[in-house]
Amino acid sequence: MSNKTNQQWGGRFSEPTDAFVARFTASVDFDKRLYKQDIQGSVAHARMLTRVGVLSQSECDDIVRGLGEIRVQIERGEFEWSVALEDVHMNIEAALTQKIGITGKKLHTGRSRNDQVATDIRLYLRDETDLILDEISRLQQGLLDLAEQEAETVMPGFTHLQTAQPVTFGHHLMAWFEMLSRDYERFVDTRKRINVMPLGAAALAGTTYPIDRHYTAELLQFSAPAGNSLDAVSDRDFAIEFCAASSLLLMHLTRMSEELVLWASAQFNFVNLPDRFCTGSSIMPQKKNPDVPELVRGKSGRVYGHLFSLLTLMKSQPLAYNKDNQEDKEPLFDTVDTVKGCLRAFADMVPALEARRDVMREAALRGFSTATDLADYLVRKGVAFRDAHEIVGLSVAYGIRTGQDLGQMTLDELRQFSEVIEADVFEVLTLEGSVSARDHIGGTAPAQVRHAVAAGRQLLLSRQAG
Amino acid sequence: MSNKTNQQWGGRFSEPTDAFVARFTASVDFDKRLYKQDIQGSVAHARMLTRVGVLSQSECDDIVRGLGEIRVQIERGEFEWSVALEDVHMNIEAALTQKIGITGKKLHTGRSRNDQVATDIRLYLRDETDLILDEISRLQQGLLDLAEQEAETVMPGFTHLQTAQPVTFGHHLMAWFEMLSRDYERFVDTRKRINVMPLGAAALAGTTYPIDRHYTAELLQFSAPAGNSLDAVSDRDFAIEFCAASSLLLMHLTRMSEELVLWASAQFNFVNLPDRFCTGSSIMPQKKNPDVPELVRGKSGRVYGHLFSLLTLMKSQPLAYNKDNQEDKEPLFDTVDTVKGCLRAFADMVPALEARRDVMREAALRGFSTATDLADYLVRKGVAFRDAHEIVGLSVAYGIRTGQDLGQMTLDELRQFSEVIEADVFEVLTLEGSVSARDHIGGTAPAQVRHAVAAGRQLLLSRQAG
Amino acid sequence: MSNKTNQQWGGRFSEPTDAFVARFTASVDFDKRLYKQDIQGSVAHARMLTRVGVLSQSECDDIVRGLGEIRVQIERGEFEWSVALEDVHMNIEAALTQKIGITGKKLHTGRSRNDQVATDIRLYLRDETDLILDEISRLQQGLLDLAEQEAETVMPGFTHLQTAQPVTFGHHLMAWFEMLSRDYERFVDTRKRINVMPLGAAALAGTTYPIDRHYTAELLQFSAPAGNSLDAVSDRDFAIEFCAASSLLLMHLTRMSEELVLWASAQFNFVNLPDRFCTGSSIMPQKKNPDVPELVRGKSGRVYGHLFSLLTLMKSQPLAYNKDNQEDKEPLFDTVDTVKGCLRAFADMVPALEARRDVMREAALRGFSTATDLADYLVRKGVAFRDAHEIVGLSVAYGIRTGQDLGQMTLDELRQFSEVIEADVFEVLTLEGSVSARDHIGGTAPAQVRHAVAAGRQLLLSRQAG
Amino acid sequence: MSNKTNQQWGGRFSEPTDAFVARFTASVDFDKRLYKQDIQGSVAHARMLTRVGVLSQSECDDIVRGLGEIRVQIERGEFEWSVALEDVHMNIEAALTQKIGITGKKLHTGRSRNDQVATDIRLYLRDETDLILDEISRLQQGLLDLAEQEAETVMPGFTHLQTAQPVTFGHHLMAWFEMLSRDYERFVDTRKRINVMPLGAAALAGTTYPIDRHYTAELLQFSAPAGNSLDAVSDRDFAIEFCAASSLLLMHLTRMSEELVLWASAQFNFVNLPDRFCTGSSIMPQKKNPDVPELVRGKSGRVYGHLFSLLTLMKSQPLAYNKDNQEDKEPLFDTVDTVKGCLRAFADMVPALEARRDVMREAALRGFSTATDLADYLVRKGVAFRDAHEIVGLSVAYGIRTGQDLGQMTLDELRQFSEVIEADVFEVLTLEGSVSARDHIGGTAPAQVRHAVAAGRQLLLSRQAG
Repeated sequence: MSNKTNQQWGGRFSEPTDAFVARFTASVDFDKRLYKQDIQGSVAHARMLTRVGVLSQSECDDIVRGLGEIRVQIERGEFEWSVALEDVHMNIEAALTQKIGITGKKLHTGRSRNDQVATDIRLYLRDETDLILDEISRLQQGLLDLAEQEAETVMPGFTHLQTAQPVTFGHHLMAWFEMLSRDYERFVDTRKRINVMPLGAAALAGTTYPIDRHYTAELLQFSAPAGNSLDAVSDRDFAIEFCAASSLLLMHLTRMSEELVLWASAQFNFVNLPDRFCTGSSIMPQKKNPDVPELVRGKSGRVYGHLFSLLTLMKSQPLAYNKDNQEDKEPLFDTVDTVKGCLRAFADMVPALEARRDVMREAALRGFSTATDLADYLVRKGVAFRDAHEIVGLSVAYGIRTGQDLGQMTLDELRQFSEVIEADVFEVLTLEGSVSARDHIGGTAPAQVRHAVAAGRQLLLSRQAG
Repeated sequence: MSNKTNQQWGGRFSEPTDAFVARFTASVDFDKRLYKQDIQGSVAHARMLTRVGVLSQSECDDIVRGLGEIRVQIERGEFEWSVALEDVHMNIEAALTQKIGITGKKLHTGRSRNDQVATDIRLYLRDETDLILDEISRLQQGLLDLAEQEAETVMPGFTHLQTAQPVTFGHHLMAWFEMLSRDYERFVDTRKRINVMPLGAAALAGTTYPIDRHYTAELLQFSAPAGNSLDAVSDRDFAIEFCAASSLLLMHLTRMSEELVLWASAQFNFVNLPDRFCTGSSIMPQKKNPDVPELVRGKSGRVYGHLFSLLTLMKSQPLAYNKDNQEDKEPLFDTVDTVKGCLRAFADMVPALEARRDVMREAALRGFSTATDLADYLVRKGVAFRDAHEIVGLSVAYGIRTGQDLGQMTLDELRQFSEVIEADVFEVLTLEGSVSARDHIGGTAPAQVRHAVAAGRQLLLSRQAG
Repeated sequence: MSNKTNQQWGGRFSEPTDAFVARFTASVDFDKRLYKQDIQGSVAHARMLTRVGVLSQSECDDIVRGLGEIRVQIERGEFEWSVALEDVHMNIEAALTQKIGITGKKLHTGRSRNDQVATDIRLYLRDETDLILDEISRLQQGLLDLAEQEAETVMPGFTHLQTAQPVTFGHHLMAWFEMLSRDYERFVDTRKRINVMPLGAAALAGTTYPIDRHYTAELLQFSAPAGNSLDAVSDRDFAIEFCAASSLLLMHLTRMSEELVLWASAQFNFVNLPDRFCTGSSIMPQKKNPDVPELVRGKSGRVYGHLFSLLTLMKSQPLAYNKDNQEDKEPLFDTVDTVKGCLRAFADMVPALEARRDVMREAALRGFSTATDLADYLVRKGVAFRDAHEIVGLSVAYGIRTGQDLGQMTLDELRQFSEVIEADVFEVLTLEGSVSARDHIGGTAPAQVRHAVAAGRQLLLSRQAG
Repeated sequence: MSNKTNQQWGGRFSEPTDAFVARFTASVDFDKRLYKQDIQGSVAHARMLTRVGVLSQSECDDIVRGLGEIRVQIERGEFEWSVALEDVHMNIEAALTQKIGITGKKLHTGRSRNDQVATDIRLYLRDETDLILDEISRLQQGLLDLAEQEAETVMPGFTHLQTAQPVTFGHHLMAWFEMLSRDYERFVDTRKRINVMPLGAAALAGTTYPIDRHYTAELLQFSAPAGNSLDAVSDRDFAIEFCAASSLLLMHLTRMSEELVLWASAQFNFVNLPDRFCTGSSIMPQKKNPDVPELVRGKSGRVYGHLFSLLTLMKSQPLAYNKDNQEDKEPLFDTVDTVKGCLRAFADMVPALEARRDVMREAALRGFSTATDLADYLVRKGVAFRDAHEIVGLSVAYGIRTGQDLGQMTLDELRQFSEVIEADVFEVLTLEGSVSARDHIGGTAPAQVRHAVAAGRQLLLSRQAG
């Protein structure tokens, strides 16, 4: 038996694996990241096997102790990873057997690499999801603080990037807060489907050993064992769903980034990004580039790509496990790293944003931003909305020709277009009048922004409690 | 005012829209599908405006009656849609004004097309999601019935499309059931985020009219009004999330389709698809093609594509509404149609599948499918698992050379590889012995399949109750 | 034989196709668009069959005449399309047989729907590609004219959306021209791989009739018959490659659109889009929205999505034809329509763009755009580039503090940072000095822009010649 | 100047970069792969600067020598990469300056990192494309040899994975050859657009130094300098186009992989994959898994994902360079690695495939594969094709009922369905008769396969010549 071609499965093979193929199919270079979860799962598996009588207590103790030592070795950088041993699972098992002898080989009783890797990756993703949830909350906290501070700051609200109506900067920031609340919910929903235990599915059909899957699930804090062994080893929905939730989050961050890049331009000049979040140019000495939002915006491509990578991967795969599935890890790992990095960058940067209130205000005064207020004024005076709309349209056309905004025209000029206009019109044409009048739930009035901030603070508190 | 360039917004414009641009930017050809939800939303909006005193009761009555007549006209195919009126909203409003006069123009008070279209599309998608949930349940019902019927049918279980271990066909079908249960949950989770009301956000900032958004939400059975007006008009998360849930569902259907196509091939020959779900060839008279699963498999591309389309659409859009967003509808509508069509095809077809039990059994007898059982037998006799694995590997190599499966070898032949093997080995090498031994939750034993079917029936019942 | 279950292939079937399945699998609703190419291909096939003696001359004449009549009927809207006949091919063949009797049935000799549809779609795509090539040229023509006109117009050049260096507007437009030249080349390259003829591959293996594929290819102006029948019926590379070329084109249009939307904003205000390419708002009377570039930007999602749809479709399909392939058409058709529509909108709009030269110039004067020129000046005076960079960086920091651009400082102020600076520095700090100094191939100097325009005109001429 | 915040661009900055931001925005960890091209580009740039008089010959000699030493250091693993220096360019330049003093700083004269990185990546991709072209040819060579060897081996040809008509295995392999020929052409076309030189575009607008771009292009063997500086620094088309060509290639490999996995299954059993290209199972000792084709099939997702990553990245980016673009590298590098790995695996494996000719032949005898031949026979006897089709359909239905293939029926049985059938029918019902009769260009006849192989050999030779 000494000339077997592979340590783990060579019995029926008549020639060793081609050297390039061995490298090409090995996963240890990237799946070693799962070492902690692999050991955690193995410990729970050993404890369960002991409880049902497959292992003795002293065998269990040896295994637990041996795995603990291996974990320390890995974390100290003293573990020698071997590509010949293919993956993280085989590397650790081989080390265990070397360390504690024949008992190490018994650990694999009643399981397979198929359910083992599916368990490891779910444990890993559950941990990372929890970190991501915390980071979303931190970013939202920063938005709440800034929104409260800027609850009365008036800026132009845009549609089609054209000045539409005045809004408060706090209100704008609370729009970002809302997006992130949905992201938070989606990760919570995804976590439910991550937190199900494949272990016990073995290769594909379950095992003939008298395993107790509920006990293992309890040890690993899974909500339940997976209900079908064939599905358990081939299901990668949770990874795809995680990447979909991440793609939506990154999409939101591209929208915020786009706005920050616009606002940091000389033309808008609405915000100042502190120097420490910017970089310069090797050739143009005056440049201060908003690198962080630009890079985050670019990283959306990466996450979108990983989502499609995984959807493609699973398309048309017959049950149960196929080697294709090994390709699930790198896109997932990179998605996790990217999401965490982008959230951290934003959570650090947002509290340091400085609004240039005067520039925002000045911009809001231009562009006929209170035109809708004039139309609403006319309606209150009895004009039908569609007619009011047209009266204001003509006033705006006049303003463009004469170079005045609505609030700059005389009463006589305004009355050219409708005789119902009276002196009280100038009240509704102020920026403060405009934003304060939108005083209903979800509206831009400062009072509503403060209301939304208070509700947001309550939401964050409830997460900590939950 | 008679020579304004556009009926709805021409006041400030000095030339009419280019004819090609008018066609290029119009959406009525595809958004007229939303007519029912547009009218439903308008009726609720009118009732709310009446309650807060913006409209009189008789104005409200005129509007509600007028919209009701328009709905009937549309459903009878008697409504004349006009591209010049751009979209479904303007078409209906123009018809209303023609029908009931100036009051029709008042309906648009306190809202904008931005919040109107966002509301319509959510109402639409909520309705369609409910239909999809029902259709998933119907398909799952068919799987439960078939799985119960085939709980003892043995077939080869595959990994890497190589015979791995015997499984029951009922167990395999219950793996499909599990996938669909996750899809159901995902659509339920998505529905929560669809069912939030944008109406009242107006163009982007809310409105100066004293609207009661909670009342409108109640009338339209939304769970709540959206919390931020800027977000409300520009949020398309729900559409993306719906397409992500649909992509996962279609991915599952590609896996089932792939298996059906394989199983319907002459080489597998595991199932018979009734003729009514197949088509023939214009040139090869003997062909009976599994068109339905093939086409469903192909339709995954369409849905994946729509998901990516919407993610691209939203990337880097600054707040709030931009014209880009008009492109959200066609991918969404086609996703809805595709999901419903594919589910219907599968829900109709699955109960008609005929298992060729003898062929399945014959296939399971080949390919050393009980090799793992022999290894487990050796372990129970005291051999370490990894050593047992190797003993069986050598037995299999011998079997390949001599053209015998494990159950066909003599005791002496088997004992060449390990002396612990005794006559009781032949029991574990039977297919029935193999599947029955995997008798834990999630395992392939017939008893477990029946257990899973019972739990599945309970789940479907609870959905009806909920 | 009268109770056969399907007109074309029912012989071996024992029950008719399910009514929903018939609708679900039929393609006539969208593939009827190929009628012209289907008839064109059939005429060539009939002529070839006649030449090799399979059809008589009078049979051929009947077929050609019958098909001609059908084409007229279709174009007059008098043809009755039947879903029961599945697709465009069967519809036309059935009509032909009804018209000319038994001879109509002979047309299908030596071909199959598999090679027929593959031929039709290539003929279609070749025609559409030619139209697209022309439209790219038309858009490029508009850019050349505008670039020439704006060869000396100075605007800020941006990197990171921060003012970087002055450039000429003509130079910026010529960057767009370059992108489109690559698109043109890619469509030309793609066309080579479209223009290969599948006809003769029959169902998958070729035919037993003595066909002359070179002759048919010549009649249809294909460059050659496809070299392998299995590949010919299952190859959809050309459709994917076309969608990839289209995605790149649309990506370019999103970049131009993004810039147009920015430039049309109140903050940039660099260009005026004529009213006829914009639309207004139903609620905000002052709005003039750049709908065309916004919509084009949004349509990128659609085309990207179709590309991914087709890549997904073909993933893991075994040879040869599978029903999945029917899903190739709608994404392709919609890509063609979208590309043509977006190009037309841009080709119409670009010549009508009005540069606000004064605003552009004013913007270029701000933002330290000539900082690099100062650094280069220092280098010419003997300072190492990296040191010069730092000197200018400190000057800029000083300018930010004191509210002056470089050209506004006194000589003494500038000399604080380096004593090599002398009075001749002010020459290099002018906008004209800056742009004119970049006078090498590809540089922004007006002379180079005119040079590039001339080369561009030559290129367009050579296309007409070719 | 000693307390500047960043070595390269800190002049105008008032605080150092945040430590996390520095790591988050640094690219040296992945772009150091470009060191060879970076040095190659710098050497050419230095030579050009010398020729135009900006550098002296001895400065040039110092630079060239210094860069050569750095290259050796890097290749020996003795170079210390610094994240603080951001990227490969700054790392090498800093090392150069340390080595040769102030002259090192002069190297950056007349260029910017924007044109430098764009040049490096094109040099890199051109090199890699050449390697990929060679590897495609090697794989095609293997296919030609195997196809020639199997030119007469009959197997069932499939459509819809149903037996359609007999084909030769050589013909099937030549379908793969055709796919790869298109891939080859696409990479050649892409290479044309890679091989254009951005250097000289500087940051975005060109430079004020009297550079000679044609000379640099000649030194670096680029076909031409890029025609517009703004476009040159922001164009990433070549990367996207490369990923699109790679996606099509991988798509082809998934189709081949899918077939290999099917053929290696117990149910098909058409080919044997040598043990050295397979791996085993840790739990099922009998398994021999076709890992290589499975993994290659899975890797398609990765490459598709990268394509979409890059398309997303570039969507809506205004000119010219933005930080987003830094995200172009990792997807591109991983695509290069994946394409090369998959091609190598296939090129190694294909020559080692063993056809199980008897199994293939046996499968072709079943499934009524010669039904079309019977129909063609009937047509030659004067029956219209559509009627012949129906006669054969009924014969097949009879065969299914009675358990016989067409060739196994008696003449009387066959004559039940048509009286024109005579004893000569049995000739056309043989496999050899069937395949040999499809004897036209592109057909499956052994003679045609040999013809195609000869043409293929000629093609490969012409590549070497070219």
